[in-house]
Amino acid sequence: MVKFLVCPDSFKGSLTAAEATEAIAAGLRDAGAADPDILCCPMADGGEGSLGIVAAHWGVSTLSSETVDPLGRPRTAAWAYHPEDRRAVIELAEASGLPLVRDVPLRVLEANTYGTGVLIAEALTLGATSITLCLGGSATVDGGIGAAYALGVRFLDAQGALLAPVPQNLSAIVDIDISGVLPEAFAADWSLLVDVTNPLTGPQGAAAVFGPQKGADAADIALLDAGLASLASVLRSRTGRDVSQQPGSGAAGGIALVLHALFGAEIVSGSQHLGRLLGLPDLLEQADFVFTGEGRLDGQSGGGKVVSYVANLASAANSPRPVVCLAGQVLCAPDEVRNLGLTSAFSIANGSQTMEELMSNAAENLRRVSANAAFTLLALRSA
Amino acid sequence: MVKFLVCPDSFKGSLTAAEATEAIAAGLRDAGAADPDILCCPMADGGEGSLGIVAAHWGVSTLSSETVDPLGRPRTAAWAYHPEDRRAVIELAEASGLPLVRDVPLRVLEANTYGTGVLIAEALTLGATSITLCLGGSATVDGGIGAAYALGVRFLDAQGALLAPVPQNLSAIVDIDISGVLPEAFAADWSLLVDVTNPLTGPQGAAAVFGPQKGADAADIALLDAGLASLASVLRSRTGRDVSQQPGSGAAGGIALVLHALFGAEIVSGSQHLGRLLGLPDLLEQADFVFTGEGRLDGQSGGGKVVSYVANLASAANSPRPVVCLAGQVLCAPDEVRNLGLTSAFSIANGSQTMEELMSNAAENLRRVSANAAFTLLALRSA
Repeated sequence: MVKFLVCPDSFKGSLTAAEATEAIAAGLRDAGAADPDILCCPMADGGEGSLGIVAAHWGVSTLSSETVDPLGRPRTAAWAYHPEDRRAVIELAEASGLPLVRDVPLRVLEANTYGTGVLIAEALTLGATSITLCLGGSATVDGGIGAAYALGVRFLDAQGALLAPVPQNLSAIVDIDISGVLPEAFAADWSLLVDVTNPLTGPQGAAAVFGPQKGADAADIALLDAGLASLASVLRSRTGRDVSQQPGSGAAGGIALVLHALFGAEIVSGSQHLGRLLGLPDLLEQADFVFTGEGRLDGQSGGGKVVSYVANLASAANSPRPVVCLAGQVLCAPDEVRNLGLTSAFSIANGSQTMEELMSNAAENLRRVSANAAFTLLALRSA
Repeated sequence: MVKFLVCPDSFKGSLTAAEATEAIAAGLRDAGAADPDILCCPMADGGEGSLGIVAAHWGVSTLSSETVDPLGRPRTAAWAYHPEDRRAVIELAEASGLPLVRDVPLRVLEANTYGTGVLIAEALTLGATSITLCLGGSATVDGGIGAAYALGVRFLDAQGALLAPVPQNLSAIVDIDISGVLPEAFAADWSLLVDVTNPLTGPQGAAAVFGPQKGADAADIALLDAGLASLASVLRSRTGRDVSQQPGSGAAGGIALVLHALFGAEIVSGSQHLGRLLGLPDLLEQADFVFTGEGRLDGQSGGGKVVSYVANLASAANSPRPVVCLAGQVLCAPDEVRNLGLTSAFSIANGSQTMEELMSNAAENLRRVSANAAFTLLALRSA
């Protein structure tokens, strides 16, 4: 029997990755596939939804922990833990996300990742030896000092005084004290999942590019950018490590800065890391055809996005597999589709539809085009 | 090499069949097909556009003849003639079409098919032994008396007086005089191309269903329906022939009524007749894959429509060929698509688009989805 691997990203605003997977699978059943021949692996790129997908894959419920939001207000946040593997997955957006502080005027010079650090500390205390942080959606530009503070790192000024771990103090930091740090933090494997390639500082950096949406004006951006550069210099001389030139170090307000310097946290592609965590490469080896998808396929679908990762993985397999991409919108010419490593791409639209109609009927539309694509793939067999 | 047959209908309002064929072929070239492996056969169902397709296939220019419109006003009309084969193709809409009388209040009791008869007479005089009439789009409900009059048929009332060949006289006809009829009319093979299955009279008949759009009110419909029934009875007793129960005899205001009774004109499926005329069955035997299409694919795409004809032909071939349908709108569930005999169907939409956007970018959209469908069909070979 022909085996299908179904591994879409979410269709943002309309379908979670799990819902998209089910709609595509329903279409494959319409096309005659039996359930055991449909391998399902809802995917994410480390952004919104990653936590739920990993928890579902692990077969665990997410945990709820008391922590604080970017402004220090109490908040309950979800994260996931696999006790046997001792792996924890934490979404930055859960405790340090921009939507959490939408109820008040944005205060980017005060907002920090302390709340995420609390979750990390809890995971480490529970026994986690692997920490996966899903970056994306943060309200902060703190270089990770908030999270590090929650783990016991102390930041000191020129007079040796203790500084509060808030972005406005970045430039004042001249030394750090790690004597009180949770020992497990040093022993753990850290992965920072990113879907952007911005560097820490400069015109493409964390402050300049993502600062404005977090409430930074031109003066704030200059202050934050200089602060991140200053702290990078302090950490470089202290630890010999400098993440600031690595692509993606500008993600989530530069949180990689401290976490890399002190704990060796690595910046990784979200899709690739999650794909491995979910066992996607093994599933792919068992499949004859791959169906992936996302809300919008365009020339920028390369890089770390799910569709691109899946296409590259399938091309690199010992025997390459056809990969069909189903998307809400297909804004690629056929040669761009091929350049992404895809066999083909189809929009789920069935004709003239408003974005609202398209999104509200997304599951039905996706199921229909999935069935038609499968029938087309199998035409040579069934003809 | 893999060979493709490209044979879409027109995409009404946006692409002629020839334009749709070229867009699909361009997509196949994008997918690596070479020109000699793309067999092109723009199709029609006997409606609008049929004339141009046949003329292009024959390699002839259409002829322009002086005739009259449904209200007797002078008009130049196009038709096509193949001198060697002695075949003529005439579209009813050219001389008897509804758009021709849109400039004045509709007068359904007076409008007739005389102008079409003039073209037929010219074709017969030129030597035609085969007359193909494309019905559809007529302004008339005259049972064919206008056309027959132009060929020399005379209609008489109970007093033996000559009646004008207008619908309001239908019920008054009690006898016909064929002594002055052009002899070639009896010798010719007549085909009436229809895309509807309505009977001549009754609630699904020519007057009741199509009368209103031609300006008939309830009283007109009753008069016309009774008139057609009355003439059917007169012709039955005079010739032994009665077309009134045949599906499609209600097409084009019942023009089949007189033409069948006197000249043996046969009601045929437009797609099937044109398909044969264009050599589609032979092309299909040479092809590995078939691409067809139309503006809107729905549950009603069965019957005499191009897509359904192509799908049935491909299923009936010695070795059935996969048939992919590309349409502006796909309003079919996958099982309906399969019931039509199609392998699969894809909309040309690339996401949320208004009908206007969809139609104005139809060629580009069609090319894109054609390429993607071809890559999908060929995935097993190129993988």
